[in-house]
Amino acid sequence: MLKIKSQIHDYTVEKFDDLQSILDSLNHQHETFYLIDRSIQYHFGSILEDKIDSHRTILIDASEEEKSFERLQPVMLELLKQGIKRNARLVVIGGGVLQDIGCFISSVLFRGIRWELIPTTLLAQADSCIGSKSSINIASYKNQIGTFYPPHRVLLTSSVLSTLPWDEIRSGLGEVIKLQLIQGKTDFEELINDLNGLSKENQSEILSKWVSRSMAVKKPYIESDEYDRNIRNILNYGHTFGHAYESATHYAIPHGIAVVLGILTATYLSSRLNLESHASYQHLKKLLFPWLTPYEGELIRSDREIIFKAIKHDKKNTGDSINCILTRGPGKMAKTKVNFEDEIKPAINDFITLELTA
Amino acid sequence: MLKIKSQIHDYTVEKFDDLQSILDSLNHQHETFYLIDRSIQYHFGSILEDKIDSHRTILIDASEEEKSFERLQPVMLELLKQGIKRNARLVVIGGGVLQDIGCFISSVLFRGIRWELIPTTLLAQADSCIGSKSSINIASYKNQIGTFYPPHRVLLTSSVLSTLPWDEIRSGLGEVIKLQLIQGKTDFEELINDLNGLSKENQSEILSKWVSRSMAVKKPYIESDEYDRNIRNILNYGHTFGHAYESATHYAIPHGIAVVLGILTATYLSSRLNLESHASYQHLKKLLFPWLTPYEGELIRSDREIIFKAIKHDKKNTGDSINCILTRGPGKMAKTKVNFEDEIKPAINDFITLELTA
Repeated sequence: MLKIKSQIHDYTVEKFDDLQSILDSLNHQHETFYLIDRSIQYHFGSILEDKIDSHRTILIDASEEEKSFERLQPVMLELLKQGIKRNARLVVIGGGVLQDIGCFISSVLFRGIRWELIPTTLLAQADSCIGSKSSINIASYKNQIGTFYPPHRVLLTSSVLSTLPWDEIRSGLGEVIKLQLIQGKTDFEELINDLNGLSKENQSEILSKWVSRSMAVKKPYIESDEYDRNIRNILNYGHTFGHAYESATHYAIPHGIAVVLGILTATYLSSRLNLESHASYQHLKKLLFPWLTPYEGELIRSDREIIFKAIKHDKKNTGDSINCILTRGPGKMAKTKVNFEDEIKPAINDFITLELTA
Repeated sequence: MLKIKSQIHDYTVEKFDDLQSILDSLNHQHETFYLIDRSIQYHFGSILEDKIDSHRTILIDASEEEKSFERLQPVMLELLKQGIKRNARLVVIGGGVLQDIGCFISSVLFRGIRWELIPTTLLAQADSCIGSKSSINIASYKNQIGTFYPPHRVLLTSSVLSTLPWDEIRSGLGEVIKLQLIQGKTDFEELINDLNGLSKENQSEILSKWVSRSMAVKKPYIESDEYDRNIRNILNYGHTFGHAYESATHYAIPHGIAVVLGILTATYLSSRLNLESHASYQHLKKLLFPWLTPYEGELIRSDREIIFKAIKHDKKNTGDSINCILTRGPGKMAKTKVNFEDEIKPAINDFITLELTA
């Protein structure tokens, strides 16, 4: 069991063999309500049916549209109609979208209720399930609304990952790769070595290992800077560019894969600014290419102006210069102000035109 | 200057001579956006016009309808369209409704931005401006949504109270009375003495004095139990009944006056449970009657069933018994579980039928 310290409330991460064991472990001190990803209902309906009360369950599609401020109202209203009270518990079963919705609702309903999270995607297990954040869209503005409010417990099982499509696995690996690059050269190389040997047979074991290792990297950052004002910014590595790529491709690139493209962009920009050698960048590109292709095609076909606009409007940026996480190599990331017109724009143009099509 | 400690961020309360001095004191380190009560715009338009940017201003009517989850979306969207960024500041000028809207939006926009509050009603100045809470309605459910997120600064001037209608003053005095009853006999008697001598001429001085004294009472409760899980519950004195009376009269009774009616109900119930003498209750009723009449008429005409339903559905209650703040006299309040059917229902019936009409 992993314990995470939080300024809001401390919480635990516990591993289980399967979903049934998790549901069995939910004690009944609290009246329990459920938010469940519809695809989890599809894959694990027979297990859920026996264990949960369908009159206290809301099924939600895991889509960008659902994690909007406008769509929160009917979900909260339904919970109130189902009789939820301030001493109740909300159990959220799903990936990042369900987590965002569940986190936000739990933080504002009665000014905060107990919630427990069963993350069912690799991305949610390895990265987002710890760290307290929710991100909610409003109209066409992405992720501009949110709260800090960690679950009271995170309940993990790698068994649910077996139903994920390959690109969902790769998307999760994007954040795993990011975290091990932040950790340093040895860890990153061990990861790449494991990933190159990944197969259907060893997948559960390997992913479970790197879920734990990812959390171990992330834990000190979120514990020392929960509100993301300082050192935690490092975890944003690859994200300023990645978010812009997602936006410009209308979310055709899965989040974690956009992050890998963002990591490569940040490394390329770092090499242009002589922070890191071009050879190191080329080596990283070769290692990471299998984990992003063929999504570079989406980026090549996308509208550059939307990418530039998204970067300028990123909520982390406030002037002519952009705060980027750049790198001097694995384990050596730092926040750096970079001029948008002179440095970032030409680097992105060249990265997409020359580096991805080469 | 008063300093308030908070688990979210510490903040200050500063007093000024007039609204103009407050606006002059806003430094320009932050890009500033404004949420302003439309009635403040009406009374102080010429002062505001010179000092604030109308392209970064949203005017809001201070009504129950406006402080609903459904109405937050257009306000946040307008702020985003006006170009608000995460390092901006939101200045909120108004009473409780504006504070609820401003607090909620500031806490969730970019996961929390800086906000400063200029409370313009006695109720907001003496009570709600410190303590971090926001309360938002959703559909027909009142105050079920909210956050804890104090302003970064509270900027006070008693000069704005001169435009308030008498019943707005009395409503604010309801919370002032509650706080001094919690503080104890001597303070409460000093307050009643001051109030009995209140006139147009000394109003500003007397209200300013009791705004400060109210904050002094409230401060230790919110500092030691910001999230309202324990000792801060005492501040709920009169509110379980008061909220139900507001609800059953469709908010025809101003909040603070409903609280005074709630205080009398709690004291009457305390006397029926032999916690306090009937004579003390009768004495308190005589002292407080001028501060609530003729609103007892609204209560007498209201639907009892709505009152009972509201109490049972209060977000603080979770079973057959109701958590009430009862009293053994000024300064001696305590949280007490009271059976709803056997004790509360007949006490409310008798209070309204026998005590208010006598």
